[in-house]
Amino acid sequence: MRIIADNIQITDPRVAKALSEMDPSPVQDLAKQCEQAGADILDINPGPLTRDGEKKMAFLVEAVQEVCDLPLSLDTSNASAMAAGLQACRRKPIVNGFSLEPAKIEKILPLALRFDCDITGFLLHPNGMVPGNAEERLTLAVQLFEALNDKGVEPERLIIDPVLVPLMWEDGPRQAMELLTVIRMLPELLGYPTRTLVGLSNLTSGRGPKEKKRLLEAVYLPMLVSAGLDGVLMDIFHQHTVSAARACDAITRQGTFSWEEVA
Amino acid sequence: MRIIADNIQITDPRVAKALSEMDPSPVQDLAKQCEQAGADILDINPGPLTRDGEKKMAFLVEAVQEVCDLPLSLDTSNASAMAAGLQACRRKPIVNGFSLEPAKIEKILPLALRFDCDITGFLLHPNGMVPGNAEERLTLAVQLFEALNDKGVEPERLIIDPVLVPLMWEDGPRQAMELLTVIRMLPELLGYPTRTLVGLSNLTSGRGPKEKKRLLEAVYLPMLVSAGLDGVLMDIFHQHTVSAARACDAITRQGTFSWEEVA
Repeated sequence: MRIIADNIQITDPRVAKALSEMDPSPVQDLAKQCEQAGADILDINPGPLTRDGEKKMAFLVEAVQEVCDLPLSLDTSNASAMAAGLQACRRKPIVNGFSLEPAKIEKILPLALRFDCDITGFLLHPNGMVPGNAEERLTLAVQLFEALNDKGVEPERLIIDPVLVPLMWEDGPRQAMELLTVIRMLPELLGYPTRTLVGLSNLTSGRGPKEKKRLLEAVYLPMLVSAGLDGVLMDIFHQHTVSAARACDAITRQGTFSWEEVA
Repeated sequence: MRIIADNIQITDPRVAKALSEMDPSPVQDLAKQCEQAGADILDINPGPLTRDGEKKMAFLVEAVQEVCDLPLSLDTSNASAMAAGLQACRRKPIVNGFSLEPAKIEKILPLALRFDCDITGFLLHPNGMVPGNAEERLTLAVQLFEALNDKGVEPERLIIDPVLVPLMWEDGPRQAMELLTVIRMLPELLGYPTRTLVGLSNLTSGRGPKEKKRLLEAVYLPMLVSAGLDGVLMDIFHQHTVSAARACDAITRQGTFSWEEVA
């Protein structure tokens, strides 16, 4: 399973500082720490980038690439900033991401074709609303798939994020279990080995004791993995969850078991 | 999910001592510790009981019941010792268990009818061999179900143990993943909400670092739970695995999420 660190985001003071002062070193320190903690991919989420978006996104990509060889996932709704960031990438990045919102289909999705790279597609309604059950999610997946076809993007480029909602929502536990069904059914529904990705931090967002949040992450992730999940976007400094992810790999990778693979 | 402690077994020196000296206190101490550690059910496994089996099984049951109100699961292949133990139980016990071995069908299975209690059925070939894949396991499940019918035992009495094999076996990881498929398919195959139980200690039996073994248990258990597992037979002193089991419950129980349920 690929672990995508969600740590390089504007809510981290080091990222905010790097951007406001155009100083690469704070974000470079963070990127190195993410790599050491076991990330396979780094997500870069600079927020809305209302001003100088292109320059700032390219700056972040270049800053991170100077100290780290991991592939990047670029996370912004600003299409021109996204394009500038993709242009600056030395290795194939992931466009993170699009949904059925018309602006995203028109401006973000075509970037996957232009830069020949993978793109995350969120199972959200065109108005941005989170679907309420598995059936809605499966319908949205078919619509995402059709949008890809319309724009001439190969279906293999799509990584579906079925959109995990917090357990604390009224129907959170039910949605968490239904998400497993969605992940399990997508390959048969779409007719090819669809890749999936989940933003795990969403599971426990809101108030709650930190240790219990970590425990919930570490048990829900194996459920996702056994349903067929390919990638997880998570806080890479949750070491226990990283260890759980690697232990899952040792079970699911098939072939002969090896203790070496368990962290 | 119900957690069945597998700690009261003849390989524990306290159980061996209690049996050899017919002294209840060592096994009573152990039973109390198991209850405090979070067990829902206590499995009592006194080994083959080649001599004075009836007396010894009844002694163990009575000793444990004096200090603990938890239901018991009686684990012996000695049918007359099993009957004596079941007779001594104050609360409905579980007969653990039978398989397609002819002696077990003839002597152990009828005890579930006679004592009107649940019985664990192992997915093993009639010669005791472990099945090699999901298809064999599903075939064996149908045969177990038919054996129940033949002996007049209600299908709802059956708790199927699909027989987990160690990861260290040549095809261990593959079998671990196939077991999830078996658990998921049983209710549809047999046509009713079949209960399942897995002996989790088997996953990591053999040599290996203790901490890694615990980690593997704690990630494989959520996979089992999301496949529909109802009960787990495990070392109740693996506190991290117990916490993982309770965290799984908080996600899978549906309804509104509560932090109280996460240990």
